[in-house]
Amino acid sequence: MNRREFLAIAGFSVVGTGGRLARGNEKQAAKTLSNNHPMKRPKMLFFDVNETLLDLKAMKTSVAEALGGRADLLPLWFTTMLQYSLVATVGDHYDDFGAIGAAALMMVARNNQVTLSQEAARNAMLPMRSLPPHPDVASALADLKEAGFRMTTLTNSSQAAVDAQIENAGLTEMFEARLSVESVRRFKPLREVYNWASNKMGLMPGECMLVAAHGWDVAGALWVGWRAAFLSRPGAQRYPLAPEPEIAEPDLKPAAKRLIAMEE
Amino acid sequence: MNRREFLAIAGFSVVGTGGRLARGNEKQAAKTLSNNHPMKRPKMLFFDVNETLLDLKAMKTSVAEALGGRADLLPLWFTTMLQYSLVATVGDHYDDFGAIGAAALMMVARNNQVTLSQEAARNAMLPMRSLPPHPDVASALADLKEAGFRMTTLTNSSQAAVDAQIENAGLTEMFEARLSVESVRRFKPLREVYNWASNKMGLMPGECMLVAAHGWDVAGALWVGWRAAFLSRPGAQRYPLAPEPEIAEPDLKPAAKRLIAMEE
Repeated sequence: MNRREFLAIAGFSVVGTGGRLARGNEKQAAKTLSNNHPMKRPKMLFFDVNETLLDLKAMKTSVAEALGGRADLLPLWFTTMLQYSLVATVGDHYDDFGAIGAAALMMVARNNQVTLSQEAARNAMLPMRSLPPHPDVASALADLKEAGFRMTTLTNSSQAAVDAQIENAGLTEMFEARLSVESVRRFKPLREVYNWASNKMGLMPGECMLVAAHGWDVAGALWVGWRAAFLSRPGAQRYPLAPEPEIAEPDLKPAAKRLIAMEE
Repeated sequence: MNRREFLAIAGFSVVGTGGRLARGNEKQAAKTLSNNHPMKRPKMLFFDVNETLLDLKAMKTSVAEALGGRADLLPLWFTTMLQYSLVATVGDHYDDFGAIGAAALMMVARNNQVTLSQEAARNAMLPMRSLPPHPDVASALADLKEAGFRMTTLTNSSQAAVDAQIENAGLTEMFEARLSVESVRRFKPLREVYNWASNKMGLMPGECMLVAAHGWDVAGALWVGWRAAFLSRPGAQRYPLAPEPEIAEPDLKPAAKRLIAMEE
């Protein structure tokens, strides 16, 4: 972890590349870090949506059906979708996340001798818009809101998809904004996506915290100087070559408890 | 396929974003495209290395061993490595491909209840530097060289790794340069990697052809206006949301034959 990241994680606003402190001092930052317990609440929580808040089970069922029952191929399909969202990003050729998911599904099917039409691949993506929240999510979000936290989404889903997802999950009242990467036509964890999101909400990077069940998302947020909470849901792993997030909990309930315990 | 890409594939140099033709005219380009048979040879062939030229079997064996014999997890491991090479790229945090491969291996192991030390993960990557060429490669490269083609590598492997790989595979004499993405500390298919490579060799994008057994690599090359040949080796699929390459063959032998048949 470099100095800039460590200061940002410790809750200090860092201005410019020289690491000048906007408030506090290095001694106090070091003390805060050594306790591994930043005292100040982040000014805004940015929630990843797929898998972090919503349970992908229904979509996994439809995708496994499209793959002729090969549920063992689901992690490969999801990883291929994420890989190609970044292929599109670095190639400057944006397509929406659902279209990339369908394309990834066709590639995995072809590699496993499963016949699948383009239409069937698209249809297998449809449950993505009506996923239920994980059981811990609704009450933990309500606790955070009650405690005064400001919250927004920041998702790789398209704007129309996240609007439908949050409404169908009954979480509309929880978020003051629903940010989608579609606004910048690039996918997380591109640095510009987080920078756009913090600017959009009028905040400095160190005032923002990402909450996500993806190692790559937490890595990207920490690398731009955001704070991060990692939810280690089944199948989620932190990226070993990224800094450690200040919060790592199995689901949102204990993560929310730790956030609420922080100084306002 | 947009006009710019189609002209580039047809072998015309396209200058600037307006699509001005450097030589030839649109009518002839359209005719050439409709035959799906560009008559002019590319000025330089850029070869991807891993899987395209070299057989990954030995490394897959060591990785499967590290995964407790779970050979079924190899595609997931390789896709995770590629995903995280792009996570690093868009997060502006370069690590070499082998280190990312080891990190990906640890994540896949943890998700599958396989105990694996960091050292064991790194050791599982070592066979990457001494992979043999696929059986079609040496003679097809010799035919291309004999026919006057200029050839170089363009690989996600580090410079030290590709130097060792090409020497250990006995292919040193075939290439006038061994380009590695390490020079730009970003991974393919980032646009800047291909643009750097064509500039480095003093060429226009439309004069370059990538040869690769990866859909994402072919997509990235076509998106910057390079030509491309796809080798559909086992497990390789084109990306359905990218333009089609002008050559798609099972291995390098028939691809070389089609290249040699082109006008000089």
